[in-house]
Amino acid sequence: MNLHGFTARDGELEVGGVGIRRLAARAGGTPFYAYDRARLRARVAGLRAALPAAVRIHYAVKANPLPALVQHMAGLVDGLDVASAGELAIALDAGMPAARIGFAGPGKRAEELRQAAAAGALVNLESEREVALLAGIARATGWRPPVALRVNPDFQLKGAGMSMGGGPRPFGVDAEQAPAVLAAIGAAGLDFRGFHLFAGSQNLRPAAIVEAQRAALALARRLAAHAPAPVRHLNLGGGFGISYFPGDTELDLAPIAAGLAELVADAATSLPGAELVLELGRWLVGGAGVYVCQVLDRKVSRGRTFLVCDGGLHHHLAASGNFGQAVRRNYPVAIATAAGAAPAGPVSVVGPLCTPLDLLADQVDLPAAGPGDLVAVFQSGAYGASASPQGFLGHPPARELLV
Amino acid sequence: MNLHGFTARDGELEVGGVGIRRLAARAGGTPFYAYDRARLRARVAGLRAALPAAVRIHYAVKANPLPALVQHMAGLVDGLDVASAGELAIALDAGMPAARIGFAGPGKRAEELRQAAAAGALVNLESEREVALLAGIARATGWRPPVALRVNPDFQLKGAGMSMGGGPRPFGVDAEQAPAVLAAIGAAGLDFRGFHLFAGSQNLRPAAIVEAQRAALALARRLAAHAPAPVRHLNLGGGFGISYFPGDTELDLAPIAAGLAELVADAATSLPGAELVLELGRWLVGGAGVYVCQVLDRKVSRGRTFLVCDGGLHHHLAASGNFGQAVRRNYPVAIATAAGAAPAGPVSVVGPLCTPLDLLADQVDLPAAGPGDLVAVFQSGAYGASASPQGFLGHPPARELLV
Repeated sequence: MNLHGFTARDGELEVGGVGIRRLAARAGGTPFYAYDRARLRARVAGLRAALPAAVRIHYAVKANPLPALVQHMAGLVDGLDVASAGELAIALDAGMPAARIGFAGPGKRAEELRQAAAAGALVNLESEREVALLAGIARATGWRPPVALRVNPDFQLKGAGMSMGGGPRPFGVDAEQAPAVLAAIGAAGLDFRGFHLFAGSQNLRPAAIVEAQRAALALARRLAAHAPAPVRHLNLGGGFGISYFPGDTELDLAPIAAGLAELVADAATSLPGAELVLELGRWLVGGAGVYVCQVLDRKVSRGRTFLVCDGGLHHHLAASGNFGQAVRRNYPVAIATAAGAAPAGPVSVVGPLCTPLDLLADQVDLPAAGPGDLVAVFQSGAYGASASPQGFLGHPPARELLV
Repeated sequence: MNLHGFTARDGELEVGGVGIRRLAARAGGTPFYAYDRARLRARVAGLRAALPAAVRIHYAVKANPLPALVQHMAGLVDGLDVASAGELAIALDAGMPAARIGFAGPGKRAEELRQAAAAGALVNLESEREVALLAGIARATGWRPPVALRVNPDFQLKGAGMSMGGGPRPFGVDAEQAPAVLAAIGAAGLDFRGFHLFAGSQNLRPAAIVEAQRAALALARRLAAHAPAPVRHLNLGGGFGISYFPGDTELDLAPIAAGLAELVADAATSLPGAELVLELGRWLVGGAGVYVCQVLDRKVSRGRTFLVCDGGLHHHLAASGNFGQAVRRNYPVAIATAAGAAPAGPVSVVGPLCTPLDLLADQVDLPAAGPGDLVAVFQSGAYGASASPQGFLGHPPARELLV
């Protein structure tokens, strides 16, 4: 039985060495998310061991903004990337130096730009309007935060689960428009540091990632000629996928590491003094988290068996298949209180909501389970609690534990 | 220009007679949802005028649980239906007598059943487990709430946006199993009142709704022979759709009213003393609400124009196409600060999130607009704020106003 990197003892799933029933008691009940500190640490360490030492690793807070988890990650990575003033506050609370916090987002409010400038975070500018707004803030206050230009590349990340660059996009400024915006940044006297180039996310094809990173460096080299100051910071984006579904394979880091070694060598001469940054969210934290809910009822309806649970779509929208998936597929699930038991036939795991959308697993072959048993949904450390409509239908929010 | 039942003055959309810029100021900023009290009142009044007087109208709180709105609706309808203990508390706060609050949900926690029993709400029992749990609560406390049996019908609502009955379902007990569960309800000495039969939702075909209601009454008549007490309550469900997309037509109430008149006459002899209840959520409140966000930036990227707004998917998941839609289609949108102005070509309305999912309108022909203009998304009174991942990416939640 595949526990997706977790362990089991006496038939019970463990997170951080603690049995799942005890964790439920510690949480004060179900449903809850549990995140494994040791796995997060090991994940970052494994990545560092694989990649060239010069590559900087940033954690994208959007993947999981739980303050305790961000605090833990802040001690492991080289920087944090945030997508709002709310996330910026969490990153600052975690003790990350402001200059190693990057703020990106296609529609930053003026107040958010002001907050980022006051903090001294690196602002990824994404339009001429943002250049003008930040310049005005700098003139009025004397605050002069580091800035980078987010560029919508003239290439796509092939095979990405979600494409975020190439073609018409609201993210950043088109590569073709970048020279003009760079000139505006220079004219405004802003503290230019480099570029942010994010082509897509959730990609399991190393060759595509390497190609996108290579293209990103080449684009940065071309644009550097127009920049008002030397490039010292180059965010190559992320895009590293994790395996959710049958047939998915774990991303092979070796070719990516080899590709990055070439880019580090290239940048040493073509963009001397520039740090190369990878911005990773899902890949760092997705596997370290599990969502746990309790079976309330077991129903057999016209030949089909349902495990009706106290958790579902409102806590874990992505697992229900309603968050960007074109075709619904089951996240990996297990009976956490019957780990290792033999499958007993297909069941559907559903939540407590009055809607057929509230489906955590459709017809999966699981061990026998009934009321009181706990269901675990793996690969739930990213885009879980924070990406779900927790208020929907008035049930309590999911608890969250860092173990 | 179609303002979907709202008015405009001097080029500005109004809600409840108040201009949209003034409403934004009253809200303390954007984004916000505004719900029109007068339209809610008129909607219920129009329904009452169309339907036989004997038919009871319930509001399904799940569609929009804003306490102020539920309070308003409580004064207009005959009862409230809730889907959790959280919604039950809102319904009780609104002053609705407990006996006219119905509680349904495929997975009720024991504590929720206890709360409903203590309140004296009508509990829609959905499994043998729930019968046993509630019987235990009644024995231990002496509380004897009214109960109904939720039945998974042996028919489907044809053409429903979301099918919730017929075939294997986690909702209620199969019609075939109902006699045994009714016997258990009788043996437990619970205060049986009737049935809950919900076949589906968001249907725009009156004939299908009439057929489902007729089949529901027929099923209730058959099951009444097995019931431990006369049927005094029959929840026929809802299923009334509203028009979201081009080509959708408004639901014609006339055939539904004619069908219900027949059912009222039938029930008067076949189930004497039984009240017929319609449980409506979306149809009552969907049209009365509008979501309003502000344009932060206007970007032209490779020939396509984007209006980047301060609101999006995190406030209005359904409008982004990520809530149960198989194919993404645009909700009706307008430039609320340029109502009546001539279209100026296609634009895409996107939100502030770093994801291509954050799309409120894809390539719609709207009047010219830029930073400071307000965008309105119509048909947003149901399954909006409460059905969205408001914490996603750390932006502030949407404000909500009842005007």
